[in-house]
Parts: sequence; structure tokens; C-alpha cells
Amino acid sequence: MSNSFGKIFKITTYGESHGVGIGVIIDGCPAGVDVDEDLIRVEMQRRKPGQSKITTQRKEEDEVEILSGVFEGKTTGTPLALSIRNQDQKSKDYSHIKDSYRPSHADYTYDKKYGVRDYRGGGRSSARETAARVAAGAIAKMFLAHYGIKVQAYVSQVGDFKLKKHYSQMDLSRAEENIVRCPDAETAEKMIELIDETRKNRDTIGGIVSCLIENVPVGLGEPVFDKLHAVLGQAMLSINAVKGFEYGSGFEGVKMYGSEHNDVFVKEGDKIVTRTNHSGGIQGGISNGEDIYMNVAFKPIATIMNDQESIDKEGNKVTVSGKGRHDPCVVPRAVPIVEAMAALTIADFILRAKTSKIE
Amino acid sequence: MSNSFGKIFKITTYGESHGVGIGVIIDGCPAGVDVDEDLIRVEMQRRKPGQSKITTQRKEEDEVEILSGVFEGKTTGTPLALSIRNQDQKSKDYSHIKDSYRPSHADYTYDKKYGVRDYRGGGRSSARETAARVAAGAIAKMFLAHYGIKVQAYVSQVGDFKLKKHYSQMDLSRAEENIVRCPDAETAEKMIELIDETRKNRDTIGGIVSCLIENVPVGLGEPVFDKLHAVLGQAMLSINAVKGFEYGSGFEGVKMYGSEHNDVFVKEGDKIVTRTNHSGGIQGGISNGEDIYMNVAFKPIATIMNDQESIDKEGNKVTVSGKGRHDPCVVPRAVPIVEAMAALTIADFILRAKTSKIE
Amino acid sequence: MSNSFGKIFKITTYGESHGVGIGVIIDGCPAGVDVDEDLIRVEMQRRKPGQSKITTQRKEEDEVEILSGVFEGKTTGTPLALSIRNQDQKSKDYSHIKDSYRPSHADYTYDKKYGVRDYRGGGRSSARETAARVAAGAIAKMFLAHYGIKVQAYVSQVGDFKLKKHYSQMDLSRAEENIVRCPDAETAEKMIELIDETRKNRDTIGGIVSCLIENVPVGLGEPVFDKLHAVLGQAMLSINAVKGFEYGSGFEGVKMYGSEHNDVFVKEGDKIVTRTNHSGGIQGGISNGEDIYMNVAFKPIATIMNDQESIDKEGNKVTVSGKGRHDPCVVPRAVPIVEAMAALTIADFILRAKTSKIE
Amino acid sequence: MSNSFGKIFKITTYGESHGVGIGVIIDGCPAGVDVDEDLIRVEMQRRKPGQSKITTQRKEEDEVEILSGVFEGKTTGTPLALSIRNQDQKSKDYSHIKDSYRPSHADYTYDKKYGVRDYRGGGRSSARETAARVAAGAIAKMFLAHYGIKVQAYVSQVGDFKLKKHYSQMDLSRAEENIVRCPDAETAEKMIELIDETRKNRDTIGGIVSCLIENVPVGLGEPVFDKLHAVLGQAMLSINAVKGFEYGSGFEGVKMYGSEHNDVFVKEGDKIVTRTNHSGGIQGGISNGEDIYMNVAFKPIATIMNDQESIDKEGNKVTVSGKGRHDPCVVPRAVPIVEAMAALTIADFILRAKTSKIE
Repeated sequence: MSNSFGKIFKITTYGESHGVGIGVIIDGCPAGVDVDEDLIRVEMQRRKPGQSKITTQRKEEDEVEILSGVFEGKTTGTPLALSIRNQDQKSKDYSHIKDSYRPSHADYTYDKKYGVRDYRGGGRSSARETAARVAAGAIAKMFLAHYGIKVQAYVSQVGDFKLKKHYSQMDLSRAEENIVRCPDAETAEKMIELIDETRKNRDTIGGIVSCLIENVPVGLGEPVFDKLHAVLGQAMLSINAVKGFEYGSGFEGVKMYGSEHNDVFVKEGDKIVTRTNHSGGIQGGISNGEDIYMNVAFKPIATIMNDQESIDKEGNKVTVSGKGRHDPCVVPRAVPIVEAMAALTIADFILRAKTSKIE
Repeated sequence: MSNSFGKIFKITTYGESHGVGIGVIIDGCPAGVDVDEDLIRVEMQRRKPGQSKITTQRKEEDEVEILSGVFEGKTTGTPLALSIRNQDQKSKDYSHIKDSYRPSHADYTYDKKYGVRDYRGGGRSSARETAARVAAGAIAKMFLAHYGIKVQAYVSQVGDFKLKKHYSQMDLSRAEENIVRCPDAETAEKMIELIDETRKNRDTIGGIVSCLIENVPVGLGEPVFDKLHAVLGQAMLSINAVKGFEYGSGFEGVKMYGSEHNDVFVKEGDKIVTRTNHSGGIQGGISNGEDIYMNVAFKPIATIMNDQESIDKEGNKVTVSGKGRHDPCVVPRAVPIVEAMAALTIADFILRAKTSKIE
Repeated sequence: MSNSFGKIFKITTYGESHGVGIGVIIDGCPAGVDVDEDLIRVEMQRRKPGQSKITTQRKEEDEVEILSGVFEGKTTGTPLALSIRNQDQKSKDYSHIKDSYRPSHADYTYDKKYGVRDYRGGGRSSARETAARVAAGAIAKMFLAHYGIKVQAYVSQVGDFKLKKHYSQMDLSRAEENIVRCPDAETAEKMIELIDETRKNRDTIGGIVSCLIENVPVGLGEPVFDKLHAVLGQAMLSINAVKGFEYGSGFEGVKMYGSEHNDVFVKEGDKIVTRTNHSGGIQGGISNGEDIYMNVAFKPIATIMNDQESIDKEGNKVTVSGKGRHDPCVVPRAVPIVEAMAALTIADFILRAKTSKIE
Repeated sequence: MSNSFGKIFKITTYGESHGVGIGVIIDGCPAGVDVDEDLIRVEMQRRKPGQSKITTQRKEEDEVEILSGVFEGKTTGTPLALSIRNQDQKSKDYSHIKDSYRPSHADYTYDKKYGVRDYRGGGRSSARETAARVAAGAIAKMFLAHYGIKVQAYVSQVGDFKLKKHYSQMDLSRAEENIVRCPDAETAEKMIELIDETRKNRDTIGGIVSCLIENVPVGLGEPVFDKLHAVLGQAMLSINAVKGFEYGSGFEGVKMYGSEHNDVFVKEGDKIVTRTNHSGGIQGGISNGEDIYMNVAFKPIATIMNDQESIDKEGNKVTVSGKGRHDPCVVPRAVPIVEAMAALTIADFILRAKTSKIE
């Protein structure tokens, strides 16, 4: 009951990092969506390991095969099954982590919850699962394209090093021009330096991904528990390593007075807009047509290359040492994941909004 | 499809601020929970308006009637219906807001989404709905009491004014000893002063509610989309005026290195614990038995007593002026609401965890 | 998790037969539906006890109060809460059934499942719960009226005594002209006689309710598990005392050859229709625009006025004797319940169909 | 939102008859279930085409690959993905049905609902989808084995030819000894003869599958909408070609008096049992520990080898002729499908029952 997201445009993911494969079923995607398999490939490339010196050097090809739900280039209204075979599923030596609980990993909690655990490389708790989300998110983006909605994420902070510019002051598409995915070239360079240094120290560091959703129609979101930002929040917090979420004025907003914070409505031509946008495009849980923007905080990932103290199942002290190839900082590769979760959330609410009134 | 929260311990709320009444159905509460109606009353008192000089002076009695699901002091496993009649539902003059869109309220988005709107006092978008959550949360707390789990929230920031102490350095139960619900008396005084001043300026101000959940068993939460903190995040973000959520190291955690952030496991007697708790009691989305703690950011509420510029349905400029009695700062009364949502979330995950393995 | 029906137009009922009250929340009804409270009253009258000599003489007024979700005669898109207070909730003597397990009642299964049970008059397992369904069904009918869809049920069998005519040969609205709700006056008379005789023998007898749904648009229903007839089946089988469900050719259809059973498509004017309708208006789980018709089999209800042998909680033999006023045959009062469940099902599928394709 | 079944032990199927493949995700299966891949193979063999002269001669190998959720022979609590590649997905000539609406098929309703349709061999509406159900049902059976629960279906009617014996008078396991899957050898022979004759006439015929579920614990099922038999009903009615469902006394029960129909409780040793079992093992929607039994009515399948009149998309008259290899009677191969749906339903309710009371 736990591996699904969405109520109408609904995804269910499966798969472990070192099992046969991972994948996702999208159930509830309307018929008639134009499917471009190349776009799936592009998104997978953005997430995949080994893409630059500041990401893990692990190789995963992440070829997505569409097993169902698409016919002659269009969705048919039946479930889309997207399958990704694992490449390196075989038989490495995991004896070093089989019985140990790596610090800040899910080894201990999985063992206690399930009693049995696929200990190879994190199993289900591995961020490899997000590859399935990115594949599904690509379909969601194709659906959103029918409505002209655009989702764009970028890295706005690495460690203590924060991008100062407001999103409106930058060309966000330039985020893809550098390996850290920060739309400001100068800042990007410094971020890359910091990550590279961290990598050399065999350590990891956290960061923030910001996300902008443009051209959202008025009326998405539900009044109470499924407020648009509440579900966006769940979506983002469900990504591995995320510790915080804010939208609109966010945590800074608590310092403001209502007279400053309130967004005054004005009429611009035929359109009702707001003069400021502290609301972040959502009022009373429902989109108001302005830009939706948010920040997603990622902790430093737990796998570091230096030795760490820990214990094994019996409670004996052990030394855990990172093996393999891991990211020193997760945010560059998290950008397409944040976009995928945003796109999936918006897609679901577009469908939900179709039943809000008699027409 | 939008007014429910929880998958097994599931609540559905109904009601508008100025309709006949509001209420909640709890479906999925197990049979055999000891119900103490006095505890419901206590929680309702903590949320109700008019409780101090820094909250709204509006009077609402908020008497909760249990219509079903309880028999001879115990839940029966069938739905509990909790009903709260509105007192002042009648016929005030709302012509001043009927056709106007108040800044940063849900008037505009409701109108666009539904085409029809109960404009009396905010209707369904009113924070009055949270009274139903608090009533349900009281039942959830009674359920959690069978497991020894304790939920305790408090105010940790008002405007720019932030409580400096860590939760472990304070006796949180003292939060109830002052009207702002901050467990540190000295800080509380200053917060009260700031709110009172804001009130005199006919303005409003934001704040942060922190929440601690103690004695949670290992194993609550699901691996992927329903990570424990992700659903807690949705729960909190669904409360009116919330703009941000963080748990454990939160937004500060992004600045840390993995080597600092990782929580090392140690054995203490028979128990496995962690030496630090940057994880906030949750690893891989699943509780690890440590304290769960989080911060919830509230913006300044939108209704201010000063005149504001806005527009009406036709796009004509109008002046909107706050009437009635409203809170200058929402956080003191938000404390029991945060607790209610935390309790409801944990209750649901306790039940969900019962099916995780064959025993 | 068990007291809800529907996925978008979703109802949740609550209440025990002798608690404070019963009721229902309708969540997901679109805004803008015209609400006529008189029609609710009419439906409640059709279901209520004491309406004729062949139903129970018990008096229940079943006044429905709308607590929320309706404003100025229209639904607002927020949850409708419909509340019915119990009249005779007080303190009769139930000691005769408190510890006994009445034959073919739910006493034993409830006790085992929940460990605690409201033994007064059947508690939650009482057919009194269906009053809430009828109230919700009245709202569903108002929603369907916007689409011109009509639901009409009637009694087609009592005991061994079966109505011979096809629905198309009768004016179904005449079912309301007699107390057994059979549209054929002559047959009705014989059915009434049989029920009356059964009543005099202090016994009960079963029967069949048939239901016709007209003017359903093409395209309702989902391809696999939520085939339209599968959900209609669940809806009907969820009514107290129902033992069987069939639609279209039903159980008789198993005797036919494909060459007889297949419904040939023909064009009539601009419309595609079928020459026969063994499909019962549903093909591949999806409505095809033809009449949907079905039969619902009700067993004789378990409460009989004669003494019966049984056991108590400890397994001691006891004699159980029916007290109070009960129906000798449930089908006349089941007619509006069957209609309510049909209307609720169709309403849900109308909303679900709104998201099946990009338009 | 439509391709899932179950609330906790939940399956989602995907795939078209002539796409790349079909499959199923099982989400919510507890960790620790012993998985025997051979048993999956056995079930697939029972369903597969080409197994005898009275089934279609089409060859499908239906090899099931487990992609996730099983580790070292046990389920891990994470989703199981079961994948079945289609063998003959390629490029036959479907021009004869591309634009035609075959009588009593889903061609017309799919076209209207989705606007786009995979016309190759029925696409999603093909009974090929049930292969995924049988695979998932095999896992459900393995789960049920931990509780000693046994599900056994058999053919009890073909056309007008009905098995006279009560299930308790036969050794049901003998159903697998003949190709029609009727446990009475003599009757089986006559059924086979009837089907074979029908096949020679290039026609099809209907039938009934009966199902027995033994050793079910007391307490499965929910009081109102999710009564155990109501969900079993939906499960069975969701199988292709099913027109009716009854359990316990079923349609015959309507003819009985309450005094005959009531099942008297008696104590047998330590156990409470009922003397008769007209209730079919379910009272008030909840299992009472007695045998659960039911009948499922299948119409003659729509694809016949003789020419039929129909129309195309434009409404022009066309002649449709059955091509390929199809079953003259669906019930022999439906036996494992009925078992699968029964097993999946019971598995879900076992998990749901785990949260019914505080323990």
C-alpha cells in the first residue's frame, strides 16, 4: 500500500538497486497524450550516474522500455509500464554490509520493520528507485505539455554557498549548461569547486534544489488535506535525503507582517494577477495562476568514503567503510527528480480538477 | 476525494465556518481504545478562540458530540462521528466580502475552482475546519496512549524572535503555562510583547511551531512515497497558513558534511540507539526509535485590521477592511493543531506497520 | 478504511442503530448540483419502517439535516454532511441478546472481530445504516438529473413467486402504487398476500429486487477490476441480506450459445445501438448506452418472531426469541436502497470518466 | 485509477494482448512469505491456452519473471513485479477488425471512452490480462498457505448441463484430472462432449465455476461496503465474461423462509460452528469460520467462428468473422482465474483484519 503516488494520475514503482530491474506503472494517464521516447531518454540522462566529475562514476545505462499503454505514439488510457533492467545486479561482494548497520542509512530500520532485507547496495531504499520516478515524470511532462505547463528545477545552494539571485533574474534553462545545474555560471563554478573539494576529502555535502512551475491554470489543489503545496511537499520529502520543504515566502515568511506579506490582486488586461507573490502561486491550497516556486533541502548523503564507526546486528562494534562510487553531493542529479515529482503532482491535480464542478 | 487524511486510521472532515456545523468521521480506529471525553474538551480549549489577549476575542464554544463508534467508554471499531455545531452561523452582514477577493485569502481561487462559494467568513477555507482535526487528534492521542507515544508541540519563533534552546534543554510541558505556548518563560514574555504590539498596529505576524514525538517504536513509515516524514510534511503543510516544513537537521543540514551529519549507531544496554540525531528519528523514511522532531513555519495570517486595496469579481478596485475579531498571530492556537496532525499521522502508521511482515 | 464507497463521488457512513445518530459524508460531489431537500424526504419515506402492513411497524422519522456543503440551494464542491438523529436510542432492554448469538446475525462475527460490540439492536450491522445510503443516494440522483439519467428499481420476486414480464413490458413507475413495489398490479397482490401470510406465521421470506438504469452515456466503467458491473455488484452485495447479483443475461446466460447471446450493433439514425441487449448495457466493463438492468437476490431476514435455538458467548444453549417489530420481507423497503446504490455508483463513474482522455 | 485491486495486499496489472508484455505489481505483500516459483508455473499452466482439445489451440508460454520483491526465497515487504513477455506480439493482420465493432466485444465502448484503441486482438480488454492475475494469485496462495487457507474452484455447469452434487460429496482435487475441471468424472465427460460439439458448430457456450474457500479464520470482512462477499463479488464480476455471482444460498435462498434459512449456532468441542451453512461462511459481511462457497456465471464468449453481422466506425454494415484460435467455452480455463481472485481477496482481508482491534 505504500509504493504509489497520486490519486488519478497514479504511479507505482518497484525494484531494488541490485535485483533484476526497477520500473513503474502509470495508471490513470488519459488517452491521447503524445509520447516521445527521446524525451524519456533525455530525462534519464540528466539523472544517471557518471555524467560528470562531481557525480558518482558508477555506470548505469538506464534504458527505459515501454511495455504497455502506448499505441502508435499516443497513450491509450490503459496503464503504461516502464521497465528498466539493472545492469550490474550480479554478485558483488556485500559481505561488508550484510550484517552491519551503516550510519544514517536505512539498514537498521528495514531490518526491524521487515525482518528480511535485500542488503545488496541499499535494496529498495537505494536512490536507484528514483530512476523510475524520472521515467514516469517524463510522461507527466508530456501530459503537461498539452496544457503549456513548464517545470524547471535548478541547484540554488551547496553547503553554505547560496545563489543570491531571484529566479526571475536568471535564465533558468542555462542550468543545464554546467555540471552542477545552477543557472548562474559564476556561482556554478564555486559550487563545483566546493563539491570537488568535498569529494577529494572523501566526504559528502548537502544542498538545495529550487523548482519553478509556470503557466499553471487557476484551480488546482484541494481545500483541506490535499492542498496543492501539501502534496507537493509530500512529493519532495519522499525523495531520498530530503530534510525540508518550503514554498512561496517559506521560512523567511514567518518574519514578515501580514501587511507586507499579503499579495494584492490587480487586473492586468483580462487577467487577474497579484502584485507580489509571497503566496508562491497557491492560496487556500489552490493554484491562483501565478508562478509556483519552492525549495527542497537535501542533507549530505550518508555514504562517505572514510571509515566510520558502527555496529552489526548483534550490537558488536564494527568499522564501516564506503566502497564503490558514490555522489559527493546529491543535488546536481536531484534536479530532474525534483522536476519529475513536481510534474507528477501537477498532472494528478489537473485530472482531479476536472471533477470540481458541474459544467 | 479531497477531505480525507490517513490510509487506515482515516479522517474525513466537513463543514464551513458559518454553516450549520463542522465535524469529522474517524474510520479505521481499532476497537478497544479507551475514550475519555474530558481529554477532547481539553484539546478543544487549547485551540479555541478567545482564550487570551493575544488571540482573537471571538467566542466559539466548540462542544464536541460523539454520535457513533463509542460504546461503554471504548471504541467499537466502527466509525466515530464527532460533531460540532456552529454557534454564530446566522446572518451577519457579509456583503463587504461577498464579491471581493481579499488579498492572500482563498476567495479568488475558490470562485474559479467551484464557480459557487460560501462567502460567509471563509467558508470551507476557514481555519475553523481545524477544530474538527483537533477533535479527531484527541482520539488519535488516546490511541497512541496505548503505546506510550507522546506528542508535544510548542512555539519556537514569532516574527524574527527565535527560541534559542534545544528541546532537550527545556521542560516542554511548561509551554502550556503561558499564553504564547513557548516553554521558556523569558522568551515567551518577549513573544507576547511582539504579538501584542502587532495587534495594536492592526497587523499580523508569522511564527514557527516545533513538535516533538517521543517513544515511537522502530519501523513506522514506508520506504518510498509514504516515508514517515513525507506524510508528516503533508500533514503539517495542510494546516492553514503553513509555508514550510523541516525535520531533523532540516534546512540547516544542507550546510553540513556527511561526516558530521551521520548518526553513529551504538548499543546502550539492550537497545540500539544513535549517538546524535540529525536524522530526526527517521531513516530511509522509517522511524528508528529516536525522538522525531520538526519545525512548521506559519506565515502572518491574511486578515489584517487595516484597509487593503483589492479587486472585486468584475475586476473593479475595492478597499477591503478587516472586520470581526482575528488572531494577530496564529501560532499559539496552532500548537494543538500541529499536535493533532502529528498524532493522526503516527496513529495511521502504527496500523500500517501491523501488516509489514508475516509473524 | 471500510465504511466508504466510491472513488471520486465518495460516501462514508457512520452510526449504530441505537446510538445517538447515523449519517453520511459525501465527499467529491461537484459544485453546482441543484439540491432539493424535498426529494431527500421522499426517498427517506420510501425506505422508512412502518409504511404499510407488510413492513415493520417500527416508527423512525429519519429526518435528514444537511450540515454542510450546500449554499443557496446548490452544492459548493465541499463535503456534504447529512445527519439523521436516532429517535428511540434509549435504554430498552437488550439483555436477551447481549450475550447471545442470534442465528444468521452478525453478533458472533462482530464479537470475534472487534472484541467489543454495541449489542443494542444490531449496532452497526443493523440495516438502519442503509438510511444514510438512501439520503446520499438522493443527492446522487440530483447529480444524475443533470445528465438525464434515471434509476428505477422494483420488486420482481417474493419467495417462489416471480414476476413474469420483461421490464420493457411494464410502466415501472407504477411500482410505487402498491405496498410491495411491484409494477404489475396483479402480481403485486399475490406477493402482498404471501408476505402477509408469512408475517402471520411469525416467519420471514426472501425476494428479488430488479433495477433499471436508463440514459447512461457510453463510456462509464473501467477496463479491468472496476468494470461498471463489478462495482455495481459490490454495491448491491453490500446491502444487508443480499446473496446474489446478476446483470444482463445473468445466470440464464450460461445456457446460451454465443451465436444467440451476441448483441449485434446496428445504426439507428445517428446512433449506434444493439439489436438485443444480453450485455445489459455493459461491454468489456464499460457502458454502451443501452439500458443497464440487474437482479439483486435478498435472503429471508434473520430476525423471526418464533423461538430459535442458539448459544451464548460461553457456548451454553439458549433460546432466542424475536422481539420488537421487524419486516417479514425486506424487498419492498429495499427498492430505494438498491436505487441509491445504483445512483451512487453511476455518479462516481461519471466523474471518473471525465479523466479518460485528453480533450 | 482503475487497474488495481485490493487495499493492503494490492495488485496493479498492465499490458495488452499484443503489446510487448503484460504483468502485475503486488504492493503490500508482507515480508517473509515463502515463494516457490514452481507453484507460479503450475498455476500458469492451468490457465494457459492450448492445454486440451476443448480450449483454444493458441500457444502462449506465459513465462513469469520476478523482477523485484523476493530475496533468497522470501518476500521482502517491497513490491513484487511479475513480468510476462508476449510471444506473438508481432504484426499479424488485424485490418479485419481495426475499424469494425465486433458484436458483444469491447471495441465500441473502448473507442468511445478513449478515442484511441489498440485494436490488435482486443488490446487491454483481452482476457490475456487474466494471466497477470493468475501469477499474482499464486503469490496470494503462498501467503494464504501460512494460514492454512485453501482455495479450490471447479466447473459446475456447462450450458444447460449442471453438476448435481454438493461440494461436500466430492473430492474437489479430482477436478484437475479431466480437461473440463469438473470433480465428477461422469459429469465431466458429458460437459466435454457438449463443448466439443459446440466447437464443431463454430459456436461458444457459457458455464458456471464454483469456488470453495476452506479454513478461513473468523473475522475477515468489513461491516458495510466492504463486506467480504461484496468484495468477492466485485473480484469475480471483474473477470472477463462473468454475468452473475452468488454465495451461500444465493438466488435459491430467496425462496426460503427465515426459519429454514437461519444457521443455528452450536458448540462442537471448543469451537462454535453452525449446523447448516446457508450463510456461506459469511455473516454481516464477516467470515464466521465455516466454508465460504460461491458460484460465478460465465456467458458464452463473444468470439465465434461463424460470420456475424455488424457495423464499422462509420456505421456501415460489415461482416465480422472469427479468426485465430479461441475457446469454445471459457470455464475450464477460468477455474484458476476464479481461484486467483478469491485468493487475492482473502489475502487482502487477512491484512485488513490485523488492525481491527487493540491487542
